Amino acid sequence: MIKVGLIGYGYWGPNLARCFSEAPKAQLAAVHDRSPDALRKAGQRYPHAAMIGDLQELLSDPEIDAVAIATPVRTHYPLGLAALGAGKHVLIEKPMACTSQAARRLIDEADRRGRVLMVDHTFVYTGAVRKIRDLLAAGELGEIYYYDSTRVNLGLLQHDVNVVWDLAVHDLSILDFVLPEAPVAVSATAVSHVPGSPETMAFINLFFPGGALAHINVNWLAPVKVRQTMIGGSRKMILWDDLQPSEKVKVFDKGVTVLPRGEALYELLIGYRSGDMWAPQLSTAEALRIEVDHFLDCIEAGATPITDGHAGLRVLELLEAVTWSIHQRGRTIDLKLEREAS
Amino acid sequence: MIKVGLIGYGYWGPNLARCFSEAPKAQLAAVHDRSPDALRKAGQRYPHAAMIGDLQELLSDPEIDAVAIATPVRTHYPLGLAALGAGKHVLIEKPMACTSQAARRLIDEADRRGRVLMVDHTFVYTGAVRKIRDLLAAGELGEIYYYDSTRVNLGLLQHDVNVVWDLAVHDLSILDFVLPEAPVAVSATAVSHVPGSPETMAFINLFFPGGALAHINVNWLAPVKVRQTMIGGSRKMILWDDLQPSEKVKVFDKGVTVLPRGEALYELLIGYRSGDMWAPQLSTAEALRIEVDHFLDCIEAGATPITDGHAGLRVLELLEAVTWSIHQRGRTIDLKLEREAS
Amino acid sequence: MIKVGLIGYGYWGPNLARCFSEAPKAQLAAVHDRSPDALRKAGQRYPHAAMIGDLQELLSDPEIDAVAIATPVRTHYPLGLAALGAGKHVLIEKPMACTSQAARRLIDEADRRGRVLMVDHTFVYTGAVRKIRDLLAAGELGEIYYYDSTRVNLGLLQHDVNVVWDLAVHDLSILDFVLPEAPVAVSATAVSHVPGSPETMAFINLFFPGGALAHINVNWLAPVKVRQTMIGGSRKMILWDDLQPSEKVKVFDKGVTVLPRGEALYELLIGYRSGDMWAPQLSTAEALRIEVDHFLDCIEAGATPITDGHAGLRVLELLEAVTWSIHQRGRTIDLKLEREAS
Amino acid sequence: MIKVGLIGYGYWGPNLARCFSEAPKAQLAAVHDRSPDALRKAGQRYPHAAMIGDLQELLSDPEIDAVAIATPVRTHYPLGLAALGAGKHVLIEKPMACTSQAARRLIDEADRRGRVLMVDHTFVYTGAVRKIRDLLAAGELGEIYYYDSTRVNLGLLQHDVNVVWDLAVHDLSILDFVLPEAPVAVSATAVSHVPGSPETMAFINLFFPGGALAHINVNWLAPVKVRQTMIGGSRKMILWDDLQPSEKVKVFDKGVTVLPRGEALYELLIGYRSGDMWAPQLSTAEALRIEVDHFLDCIEAGATPITDGHAGLRVLELLEAVTWSIHQRGRTIDLKLEREAS
Repeated sequence: MIKVGLIGYGYWGPNLARCFSEAPKAQLAAVHDRSPDALRKAGQRYPHAAMIGDLQELLSDPEIDAVAIATPVRTHYPLGLAALGAGKHVLIEKPMACTSQAARRLIDEADRRGRVLMVDHTFVYTGAVRKIRDLLAAGELGEIYYYDSTRVNLGLLQHDVNVVWDLAVHDLSILDFVLPEAPVAVSATAVSHVPGSPETMAFINLFFPGGALAHINVNWLAPVKVRQTMIGGSRKMILWDDLQPSEKVKVFDKGVTVLPRGEALYELLIGYRSGDMWAPQLSTAEALRIEVDHFLDCIEAGATPITDGHAGLRVLELLEAVTWSIHQRGRTIDLKLEREAS
Repeated sequence: MIKVGLIGYGYWGPNLARCFSEAPKAQLAAVHDRSPDALRKAGQRYPHAAMIGDLQELLSDPEIDAVAIATPVRTHYPLGLAALGAGKHVLIEKPMACTSQAARRLIDEADRRGRVLMVDHTFVYTGAVRKIRDLLAAGELGEIYYYDSTRVNLGLLQHDVNVVWDLAVHDLSILDFVLPEAPVAVSATAVSHVPGSPETMAFINLFFPGGALAHINVNWLAPVKVRQTMIGGSRKMILWDDLQPSEKVKVFDKGVTVLPRGEALYELLIGYRSGDMWAPQLSTAEALRIEVDHFLDCIEAGATPITDGHAGLRVLELLEAVTWSIHQRGRTIDLKLEREAS
Repeated sequence: MIKVGLIGYGYWGPNLARCFSEAPKAQLAAVHDRSPDALRKAGQRYPHAAMIGDLQELLSDPEIDAVAIATPVRTHYPLGLAALGAGKHVLIEKPMACTSQAARRLIDEADRRGRVLMVDHTFVYTGAVRKIRDLLAAGELGEIYYYDSTRVNLGLLQHDVNVVWDLAVHDLSILDFVLPEAPVAVSATAVSHVPGSPETMAFINLFFPGGALAHINVNWLAPVKVRQTMIGGSRKMILWDDLQPSEKVKVFDKGVTVLPRGEALYELLIGYRSGDMWAPQLSTAEALRIEVDHFLDCIEAGATPITDGHAGLRVLELLEAVTWSIHQRGRTIDLKLEREAS
Repeated sequence: MIKVGLIGYGYWGPNLARCFSEAPKAQLAAVHDRSPDALRKAGQRYPHAAMIGDLQELLSDPEIDAVAIATPVRTHYPLGLAALGAGKHVLIEKPMACTSQAARRLIDEADRRGRVLMVDHTFVYTGAVRKIRDLLAAGELGEIYYYDSTRVNLGLLQHDVNVVWDLAVHDLSILDFVLPEAPVAVSATAVSHVPGSPETMAFINLFFPGGALAHINVNWLAPVKVRQTMIGGSRKMILWDDLQPSEKVKVFDKGVTVLPRGEALYELLIGYRSGDMWAPQLSTAEALRIEVDHFLDCIEAGATPITDGHAGLRVLELLEAVTWSIHQRGRTIDLKLEREAS
């Protein structure tokens, strides 16, 4: 039985608490939150876990094997470093840290201590994303042309991170998981429509070596909620609508073929293919449950998680490049140059 | 009765022929097309119109008052100039020409001849766009924050224009009509996923003086057809889904309010408003019928059309800026500088 | 070339005119309508066809091989009989006549004259219905449990037929085509919500020998248009939404299995199966074009149409039984008894 | 503080437990379930409540003021009677009992003891149904023409009640709440498509004094989940889609008007009205929370709940009439006669 301490019982923490408390391999042993009110709520819900107001007490408890961190982004690095330093395995909410430099130090510390460091890229563990990864890995779509995601809704505006760090981070972690290659360049545009708020709306382009283009549209001020992604390939195309109650992922046997050119120069002969549509059955298991089990399995087996510190770092490097591009009015950022410079 | 000659009976021409033939003020007097087959089809459909293989014959016919041009884009300028030169009123398909320089010459020629020059920005005459314009003009949305359009489908790939000139031109003409201000800068990204084809996918940002941002997502290789636009304002928000059979335009009484800030620096207090949704009744009259009647009314009254040559020129200037930005990897193009330079 | 005369150029007639005029095997030779205005419109559209105000003239023209009848229901029988009597092949709009007795006389007359008699059950020739028939015939759904159709919209109220004869007739003709068996009993409920109008809303149950149940919900006073049919089987289920622009027919690999019963009497153990969903590609050819070609092929080959007079008769017998049930407050009508009595 | 004992911690009980534990006026004092496993789960979740294996112990505890019953239907009557007999206020799951006779005895017992008897018609407390009731009560729709509900999905098949008692009971309780009049007659058809299972599919008609017709379509074997209700009126129409994430209730300003009749007998002149659509904001408060608070308020004030025993009885009388009609092949049951006979 792996004993787990949870740091942070605000918006996301209760979900982690529930998943750890229901995981066969874990025991939710302790919860820490700076707010006495949050701690009181957690205590009512989990009477058998220790409610600990002093973080140091939790970290120095030798009974606790692993720590899950669900606190504001700016605290991820110091808390993660302290937990690893105390010899704990660490699951850390996304984004992993505020800077890629901090993420690298967390990775180093985990390596040095021989501890599991995992980032909570929850979407990677959904049935939809795992199915999409399998389809792409099996070559079902042929050559990948594009990934085009719209992730908009009304609220919740956050004061410490902008809409890119809050919403686009999901797409960046999904891209990191489903595509075989990393992007080579990034450009982005963002504006804030609420005085004093970080950016509320952003459009991001990611350029891939083979010519694929990813586009991410995120917005905190949209009249309706949309979670829709199209993935185009040379053989097939995917429409993933995460708000559908079922059949979230649809695979279309559609495409174009360039036919041998006619004599006149302007005759581009295009053949359209349009075949069946197919919606594969998806696992409906809760993503966070699967993720928590994976974290526990990795601790037990000394294995590397799918969304390890390096995945978290790659996402952070993209977030930084997006931020630089926004600050330079959408200038295209060459990621290879950036990586060499860092 | 205004006698109208139609030049071009390919994809769009038959629609113009039908609308002119049904308009009370017009008579479809003649049709010209270089293809004998197209001319034969037109003749079967409109036995009372003259089918003319020699363009010069049509233009020199003093009985013909007006000419509608529905030919490939590269021919718009020479045909428009010849028709105006022959003293005809001219309705010209979008985009008006290949360059802003050519558009300016058409405007000058129309002015010199005292003839009506109108550009076929069809969407401007739809019930949906006219209602949106009225709502924005009445201040219903408050300050405009953004216009975000997704206009994607599978095909038809064209060989002479890219997806921007084919699809985004609709949004540019709509923006020109519904917003009180013109954009001050543009950036755009586009790629082609079909060898030998012009760009098949593009993302465009338009920056407005007051901070509003327009975003246009166009794609010829999408698995499903989408025609969806969100317009966000400080008071209300619009969702326009042009593929809905009814209730195409929905007005949401939703938004955020920034409350007086609390003492702690990071406390951004946001109040969310969420009220009723309302879908105003829209005119279901065919846009092209309304547009053709407007063209005829302007000829009769010597008036200036809503989508006159200047509207066509403004759209062309944006198309050119978008093209420059694409060629410069998404660099932001300052439209004021461009206009001064031209 | 089969020369066709069209009787009736009102709501549906223009569609028949267009399809016959475009069919390679046919020539639209003549059009008759009692309204001079309708005849004038037809003449403008089809200048090469004769516009004939006197019906007898059309029927006695030996050049005319076949007649299509698109007039109000009450005239179907006399016009059909006269056309068959004049030796013409006949395509007649649905429903075929006002009574099953009249339908039988039309069948007899066609038999006696050796002429093709076909009923315009248009839906039977759609890509969706043909695919559904193929799936059912191939046993894809297993045992058929039910057919449940909702066919509602606002208007058009008709004065000579009620909503059953106007809308439910589509489902009855589809059922006649896709199911291997005929229903054995019928019950129906209908009301009129518009004073002086025939019934505006009806609910129909059809009982099949093997236990299958068909249900039809038709309504002229619905706030939105719905054209949705579910077909449940022991192995798979179909959702047919005819208003979808594509993927109209979806096949769900879903169902229940009764597991061996547990010891306690009330333990009914049900296993749910839920697999992939699949939307087969459908022919997008216009149904009426296919139907008209089929009519012409049958004339040429002396063959029996899919929707021949007997199909029209079977649908009429159901319409009569539905009407009787409505008049008797929903009493279940035994169709075998009715057939024996007739 | 009202001390509440919960009987039954199976499918629905945990929801009641949560709502009572969060209600300011209540304390979840005790839970009873025959299954030790269910009791163990409840104990982990609510450590401060007594877990009681012996029902009699719970009922005879004088500290307990009220009892909520969430057990199989056949036990509602004996448990309800015992709880009232022990002087407890009672909230009982729907349907209230197996027979109207039993329901009447529960009402009598509650009256005799002066205790609150409430039936858990949850839908009555949703924002959607309360808004619909308000709209109808305010005359917004004009004269009510029909209520047409489709409530279908795959599973959960139940062994002790059929699909009418499981799903249609919701519509019957909604109708009881939103319409000013009770139905005067009922007819229904139902079949089972799973051997050994109660009916899995049913169609119900309810006839109202003024000519309104309600129709209910329930099915446990549908390929997709549908929760859609149309309500037609002489002035406006409602579409309620309970699966929409927002804008669940849409009010359409649509209808028909009969114009003065023309001279010919068959000219029924209908005018169609089609205006705006409007989706009023709905309360998003959880229905069960509101219902539980209402139960507690009624206990405190000695008031009669909206869904009191009489509402439960009226629904049961309809369920019985539906059942009789099903057994008599859809015969129309006259409810007045039935009430007089009972």
